[in-house]
Order: sequence, then C-alpha cells, then structure tokens
Amino acid sequence: MTEISRRGFVGGAIGAAGLFVGGATGFGIAKTTEPATTPAATDQVVAFYGPHQAGIATPAQDRLAFAAFDLTTRDVEAVKQMLGTWAAAAALMSEGRPIGPIETAPQAPPVDTGEALGLPPAYLTVTVGFGPSMFDDRYGLASRRPAALADIPALPGDELEPERSNGDIGVQACSNDPQVAFHVIRNFARLARGTAVMRWSQLGFGRTSSTSTTQSTPRNLMGFKDGTNNIKIQDTAQFEDFVWVGEETDQPWMKGGSYLVTRRIRMTIENWDTDFLADQENVFGRFKVSGAPLTGTSEFDHVDLAARTHSGKPVIPLNAHIRLAAPSTNGGQMILRRGYSFTDGIDPVTGLLDAGLFFIAYQKDPRKQFVPIQAKLGQRDNLNEYIRHTSSALFAVPPGISHAGDWFGKELFT
Amino acid sequence: MTEISRRGFVGGAIGAAGLFVGGATGFGIAKTTEPATTPAATDQVVAFYGPHQAGIATPAQDRLAFAAFDLTTRDVEAVKQMLGTWAAAAALMSEGRPIGPIETAPQAPPVDTGEALGLPPAYLTVTVGFGPSMFDDRYGLASRRPAALADIPALPGDELEPERSNGDIGVQACSNDPQVAFHVIRNFARLARGTAVMRWSQLGFGRTSSTSTTQSTPRNLMGFKDGTNNIKIQDTAQFEDFVWVGEETDQPWMKGGSYLVTRRIRMTIENWDTDFLADQENVFGRFKVSGAPLTGTSEFDHVDLAARTHSGKPVIPLNAHIRLAAPSTNGGQMILRRGYSFTDGIDPVTGLLDAGLFFIAYQKDPRKQFVPIQAKLGQRDNLNEYIRHTSSALFAVPPGISHAGDWFGKELFT
Repeated sequence: MTEISRRGFVGGAIGAAGLFVGGATGFGIAKTTEPATTPAATDQVVAFYGPHQAGIATPAQDRLAFAAFDLTTRDVEAVKQMLGTWAAAAALMSEGRPIGPIETAPQAPPVDTGEALGLPPAYLTVTVGFGPSMFDDRYGLASRRPAALADIPALPGDELEPERSNGDIGVQACSNDPQVAFHVIRNFARLARGTAVMRWSQLGFGRTSSTSTTQSTPRNLMGFKDGTNNIKIQDTAQFEDFVWVGEETDQPWMKGGSYLVTRRIRMTIENWDTDFLADQENVFGRFKVSGAPLTGTSEFDHVDLAARTHSGKPVIPLNAHIRLAAPSTNGGQMILRRGYSFTDGIDPVTGLLDAGLFFIAYQKDPRKQFVPIQAKLGQRDNLNEYIRHTSSALFAVPPGISHAGDWFGKELFT
Repeated sequence: MTEISRRGFVGGAIGAAGLFVGGATGFGIAKTTEPATTPAATDQVVAFYGPHQAGIATPAQDRLAFAAFDLTTRDVEAVKQMLGTWAAAAALMSEGRPIGPIETAPQAPPVDTGEALGLPPAYLTVTVGFGPSMFDDRYGLASRRPAALADIPALPGDELEPERSNGDIGVQACSNDPQVAFHVIRNFARLARGTAVMRWSQLGFGRTSSTSTTQSTPRNLMGFKDGTNNIKIQDTAQFEDFVWVGEETDQPWMKGGSYLVTRRIRMTIENWDTDFLADQENVFGRFKVSGAPLTGTSEFDHVDLAARTHSGKPVIPLNAHIRLAAPSTNGGQMILRRGYSFTDGIDPVTGLLDAGLFFIAYQKDPRKQFVPIQAKLGQRDNLNEYIRHTSSALFAVPPGISHAGDWFGKELFT
C-alpha cells in the first residue's frame, strides 16, 4: 500500500477516490484527483460532522440498510485507513454527493457506483460502531475494550443464527430513500475490499419508532403503535442520562458515543393474526387502534400499572409488554429505540412469512439497560409466544467526527 | 362453506370480513358486519375499478411487494370466492382503508392486520394475474387458456430457481410506501387461507423505470438510467399496440387485459463495479452520468444505431443492450417495463450481495414481445457477463373490475 493511498482519505472525495482506485484495486489514480462535481444538496441533509455521530439523535428516517463487517486484515493501519475512507465517503453521501468521480478515465472503473446519482440524501445518516471482536488480539486494542461492551449473555428465548449475528464493525445507514441507504452499504463494501468483508446485512422497510416529538408513532407488523414512550431528541436530559456515554466510562475514547444493540426479532405473524383482539391488546397492554394504554383512552395517556379492575385484577396484565418494559419496572432505565420492520420473503422450511422487527437500541450501558430489560421480557413477556430473536449484535459507537480527514473512532486508535 | 361466506365478498368490507372470519377460520361473523370505519383517503388514491387493472398504466410507484400463490383447493367456487374477497379488499386498501374492522369482538381476531392504519395509500395499486398452471385439469379452465399464455421457453442464460419461479396466481402491489404494499400481500395471504398458499415473494425497494412523462428516469443498481425509451402512459396508442389485449385474442375474457412477465435478474455487482467506465458505457450503449446514448449528449437524444466512428466501427456496439433491445432491432416490438431494484442480503455461498433487478414487463403477447427480445438479449447482450436470471414467471392479467362485488378474472369463470 502506497503512502498516497494510506493518507488517501485526508481530503474527502479526492482521497476516497484515490484510496479505492489506487489502493484497493491498483488501477492507478491518474484520473481520480478531480473532486466530485455533483453539488451538495441544500436540503434533506443531516450534518455528518459533530460531537455525536448522526443517526442516533436524528428523527428516525423511514428506511434502513444495516450491515455488519468482519475485518480480514491484521494490519491496524489498514483498519484506520478504511475507517477514514468510510468517513470521507459518508460525509459526501450525507450531502447527496457521490463518493468520488463517476466519469473517471475510460479505462478506470467509476469510483461511485452511481445508483444514488440525482437522488436527494433524504436525511441520510451513517453510523458506525465496533463489535467486541474488534478488541481481540489482532489490533492491540484489548486494553481499550470498554467494560460496557460486555458480550450479551444468552437470554431466554434466544434462537440466534450465528451467521447473521455479531461482527467486527456495524454500519447503520438510514434515509427516507432506501436506494440512498443501500448505496452506502454497497459502497462501504467496495471501499473495504482487502480490509473487511460483509458478514450479514438487513434491510428495514418501515420504521417502528418515533424519536422526535415532531413524528407520529408508527405501527409495527403486529399492527400496534410502537415506541410511544420512546426517548425523544427534544429531551436532551434523557439523552445524557440514558444514551450518551459520559464521564462514567472506563474508556475515555467512548465519551460522547453510545452502545448499539441490534436484534432481529422474527414475528410468527400468521399465528398472531389469528389471536383475538382482546388477547393482542393484553399482550401489549395497549388498545390496538388508538394505541392508548389499557388504563387510558389516548395514545399518550398515563400508563397506570397500579390500576385494577372491579374484581381486583390488574388492568394492564402482569406480563404485558408495556409493564415489563416500563422504566418503573426496570429501575428507571430507558433505551432509545430506533428499529425497523422487515420481511425477507418466505421461510423455505415452513412456508410462512419471514418478517418482523429489526430492533435497534442505543444506550449508555447495555449491562444496565438492554440486557436486564430483555432478560425480564424474555422470561415473562406475553409477546414471547409470537416472536423469536434470530440475530443479535452489539457495537460500541464512538463519538462523532469533528473534522474532515478524521476517521470513525480515531480516539480509539490514538 | 356456508352460503353467507360463499357470497361474502359481495359488498366489500363487510363481505371481506365475513368471509375471512366466518369462512376461513370459523370464529363466527357476529361482530364483523360493521363497515370499516376508517374514512377513505382523499388523495394519493389510484382508482381500483375501471376497464383495466390499476398498476399497469399507472405512473410507476417507488416500492414493490410481489407474491406468487399456488392454489391448494380443487373447488373452483373457492377460487372465485377468494378472488372476490381479494378484489373487495384491494378496493378498500386502494382508498387507504383497512380490509375490515380491527375492533372486532374481543374474542375474535381483528380482520385487518393493522400495520397500514393511518398511512395514506401512497398511490397503492394491486394487480392480479393467472399463471399457466391455473389452466391445468383442476378447474375446468384448460379450454380457456390463451395461446399467448404459452410457457416461456428456456432462454439463453437462464439459471432459474424453480422454488421462486412460476405460480398459479401473481399479485403485484405497488405504492410509494413499502409498508402499504407489504400490507396487501400479507392480508391476501390471510384471506387465501384454505384456498391458496404463497409460493414466493419479492420486495423491490427502488423503481427502475418511468412509465409517465411526468417522471424522471430512475437508475438501476448498475448506476445507469433505465427505461428512458419506455412506453409512457401518455401514449395511449402504444398501449393499444403493445400492452392491452385487443380483438386479436383467442380468449375474449382477456380483452382489456395484459400479459405480465417477471424475471428476477441478479446482478454480479461486485464484478460490475470493477469494470471500466468505457466498458460499462459500451455494455449499455449509453453514457453513465447523463444517460445519453453514445450517439448523443442528452438522455432523450436519438439512439442512432447506424452511426459509425471515423474508423468505421459502430458507435453503439453491435452487442450493446440498447441496440439489441431497441424496437427497430425487434420488428418494431416494445414492452412496458415496470421493474424494481432489490437486494436480499448476502449470498450465503459466495458472500456477495444478492441484489439486482426484479424485471416486470407488461405486453399484449409475450410470444411476440418478451420472448424473442430476451432470446436475442440472452445470446448476445454484453450485459450477460454481469447478470443471471434466477426467477421467471408469466401471468395472464385479466381486465379491470367494473363493479363492486365482481372478482378478478370474472369473465374467465363465466
């Protein structure tokens, strides 16, 4: 790898082009030093640079493309370079630009694959995190592993498929346009060539949570509103308390970051669809159409866990999802949910729809948040009859990138 | 099956509810005779009833959910009833309504699954067609099989997977909102229970053709504009010449209908992405960024197949896609393309992206249109190095439904 390509990402588009063409495929960099000529979009842009990575405290976009990558190199410099190239590329794509020239020399491949050309970024965000396996003996990072990045223990109800769980690096691309989100994953895979390979990927076609008070609450594939009491970006105190890593961390490189848990939760929707309305509503603890808790009449009414019927039974059943997941049942803990509905066609074994929720949650410390909450849900939640967790992954999402030329997780490597 | 459920679809919502709850699962119809209370959407609605089915001469929407079903009954009355229930349901969903009450009796399942509640239809269309296998000896329809519904012969380059090819019935649901499109397929599968099962399904996340002069031409996953010279709905003469079945048919029940060919065309995009710009442009015969033919400078410039370079070589190579697919190369024949980009994650065998184009074409007679055009493309198209056809299906799409209470393909059964 040449010095030019090693420093290629410093400078954004030019570097990304130079790196890819020069470093990864060896086609020469002669015609790749021209900047991307497509002007930046002037709206539907989420700022890429900042103290936190975009895609967390961003109003949840409609579509998701997620991928986990495994590193294939043992050279930490190559890892840093890839992360820098990705950052330069993400900054460009966030503005609706290609990652480099398409009209290269005739005898060179286009740097950008082109399918997002002319599409607005549609609020594209790209969020990158590091899995526990990054901190093994390959890169000298073992001592930098945060305690909060503890492997998620086996949880009740797990039916995890290893080939679509975990991974060295996770990439969340969200946009209101799925072609824009897919374009990120595809071009990241190209830019990674020789350094990392895609391990698994997941498309989400419908978001299942609102993360802003300006958004209405969407419905999941069970037909219920999901995320009514989610953390909202307007509540910066909750972000400090539950989402952003702060002074409490044992690893200063994670300050301003967060921990990302993904769970592919398959729903047995054919069974669900034959369940009676009252049962469905008791499973969630909410009314189906209005989304109101069973103790209220409107979606945002108080969830009164103490309310009892005339005969003395809890109005919200003891194993209802909203009771078990409620902060008051979990020592006041909350998580930021940012999941998406998916379908991956038909299960070839059963002939049933392979569909459900690709659960995404951000938090300050999964040991205190996702893990105990899910342990409780997995044991007692009435929902368990209708769901199976088929994939799990955990990533330490470093803070945002402040300056062009820096890379994802620079503080980890320096 | 009771007389009530047999006639259940006559009357729309009420019938759909009655049929499903009464006929298919036997939970009783006591609480299901109330009409759906959600008001119809006032915009983003494509009319369901009319001389042609919607979803053909409709500006191509952004998202697709497609499914093929196999019938499991030998009772033609059950088939008609399902097609009527589907029609009533499709009419409601096209207006943004659920297919029946969600707030049923507490001890009954909701009729509609609910995930599209509150979402505008986003120009939803639902289009239904019949595969060649419908005309075997099960339903007494063998003599009604149109000659144009001839099985598609083996074509050069085919690598078809039988489990995701063909099918008795094909359903195309298109909308600008993928959750709305998925909602159709899922609820059709429910309404089909006991009569048909889903054979295969396909999501498309980005459209790859414009079908209206009001739409710009989208790009496929090879980064090229696709469908520049597609038939446009403003050109009703081309629709009469190439899309709608007319007096020439041997089966009057197909008048006003069309023939639908679907092909899942997987792209080896990792190979494509390393191909040189000039090679990519010679494969298509167009410039990548502008979309102009190699004989022009703007997208809609004339495709001059006769133009030669100074050295006498054709400017548009002999095996370029636009030359081989051009009407002038195919006896003046055209097809209406209405395809979508897809990705189904990572190929577990190769680790490469399983992505490409879910090709959809409508036409008057596949024997004269899709089959000879694709036979030529399959033999000579420079694109073949980068694509594989992994699924194929053919459906006779009957004309539109004129009146509430009728069913898809009524003329076939009467």
